Amino acid sequence: MKLAEFSPFFNCKLKNFLDELHISKPFKDVVSYTPLAGGKRLRAYLIWELSRYTGFGEENALKAGIAVELFHSGSLIHDDLPAIDNDTIRRGLPSSHIKFGESKAILAGDFLMLFPGRVFSSLDLETRYIHPILELWQETSLKVVEGEFDDVFPEDESREQMERIHAAKTGALFGFCFAAPFIREKREKIDEMYKLGVRFGKLYQMMDDIKDVISTESELGKTPGKDGKQNKLTILSFESLEEAQIEVKESFHSILGEIDSFTDLKKEMRDIYYLIARR
Amino acid sequence: MKLAEFSPFFNCKLKNFLDELHISKPFKDVVSYTPLAGGKRLRAYLIWELSRYTGFGEENALKAGIAVELFHSGSLIHDDLPAIDNDTIRRGLPSSHIKFGESKAILAGDFLMLFPGRVFSSLDLETRYIHPILELWQETSLKVVEGEFDDVFPEDESREQMERIHAAKTGALFGFCFAAPFIREKREKIDEMYKLGVRFGKLYQMMDDIKDVISTESELGKTPGKDGKQNKLTILSFESLEEAQIEVKESFHSILGEIDSFTDLKKEMRDIYYLIARR
Repeated sequence: MKLAEFSPFFNCKLKNFLDELHISKPFKDVVSYTPLAGGKRLRAYLIWELSRYTGFGEENALKAGIAVELFHSGSLIHDDLPAIDNDTIRRGLPSSHIKFGESKAILAGDFLMLFPGRVFSSLDLETRYIHPILELWQETSLKVVEGEFDDVFPEDESREQMERIHAAKTGALFGFCFAAPFIREKREKIDEMYKLGVRFGKLYQMMDDIKDVISTESELGKTPGKDGKQNKLTILSFESLEEAQIEVKESFHSILGEIDSFTDLKKEMRDIYYLIARR
Repeated sequence: MKLAEFSPFFNCKLKNFLDELHISKPFKDVVSYTPLAGGKRLRAYLIWELSRYTGFGEENALKAGIAVELFHSGSLIHDDLPAIDNDTIRRGLPSSHIKFGESKAILAGDFLMLFPGRVFSSLDLETRYIHPILELWQETSLKVVEGEFDDVFPEDESREQMERIHAAKTGALFGFCFAAPFIREKREKIDEMYKLGVRFGKLYQMMDDIKDVISTESELGKTPGKDGKQNKLTILSFESLEEAQIEVKESFHSILGEIDSFTDLKKEMRDIYYLIARR
């Protein structure tokens, strides 16, 4: 399935999932708003596509994709808060705290970040694989928060620091998406896929940072040019735009080389690359 | 062990645990501040004491207690934020956002709320009990966030609504503390202990709400009289101070009757009751 077909299919599943949550109507409205506001669903798609090669199962892949997208939304809600990135637009709509107020946004973010644990607990897997996938998830979710903290308050301004921060705040979640479908395989395979996902996440972050300086608000769906204003470490703190664009291309082709055996995903990757670059 | 002996012993274990976290120094400073700022450690104590009757094990009891206190601290950090309860003092010290700024406080709260999942994954239990304790924890942590949301934005102002909110925002965590040590017993026993913990949590909340109107700031370690100002639903929305104090006493004696078989805990409970009432 191509990403363009997967997204509407996934959105429908996500909406059903959120509709069935047993929480009060006012809370559900806030909790559902950001996850349903759109997004490419790239993380969920990667789990879905890679699961076809591993027997992880379609239902598990969908549930895991939902969990990852919920966590990602929760983390974006907190990042957008006035005290952190102060973003008033997200996915082309008012950010959660603009729409509902800060207090509701904070608590919805908490809920969305905690909820995935429950989803992973409920996967249809042999009991002996539930514990490993939960551990992988716990490491990942903590890494994202840690990376976000270090992104806002870096210990130093080195390139190594930037690499560490991007590997955590963006890479970890992609690492999880690459690795989760392989949870029933050997530890080495899981680790190998996780590392590949982290590399993909860092590439994604580089492309995002480049777009941040060359896009308009309507192209971006959020306020452009903010990284520079907030003095965040990005690839453009160390390289010219041209150099960064060359690095992105090289990194993309190197990752393509590593997913040679996943033929359908590899075919789709080129489209995904242009989608991320242009979105 | 009495609570007065347990607290300093637990604080030492908690400090060692936090010192060993693999996160950057600036993040560790924020993450450790609120958990180490004090508190009675009543939740950790209940797990510790009840574990003596179940063979849950001292190491597991300590780790579970640490996890619960970390989550509780993370949840307090978010509750204290200007957008929610706007509390500038917590446990007699400046709240996390006053000490470190809002952005650091939000991310430290996220980390502290997510971290317990990892702790419960690492308990020294037969694999078949790890999944149930994680599920119990996931339900509990989500309930607390949901209860906090409904506390700030109640759907109606009925006594039933207040009971539901207090059972969630305060009761659930005590429910977990009562039930976790029994994780290797039958489902019915676990549920029975959880329910008893929820009742204890509701009692605790009533005592807290009563104190909120009759105490000074130095007695309370936080700003008194805020519930009334914020129009929160408390027992005093429905009963006079005298009526509420009678209900508290009756509820306490009814709970004491239910823990008859835990002789040492029962002995200590009277002191705990006066400690909560007077603190």
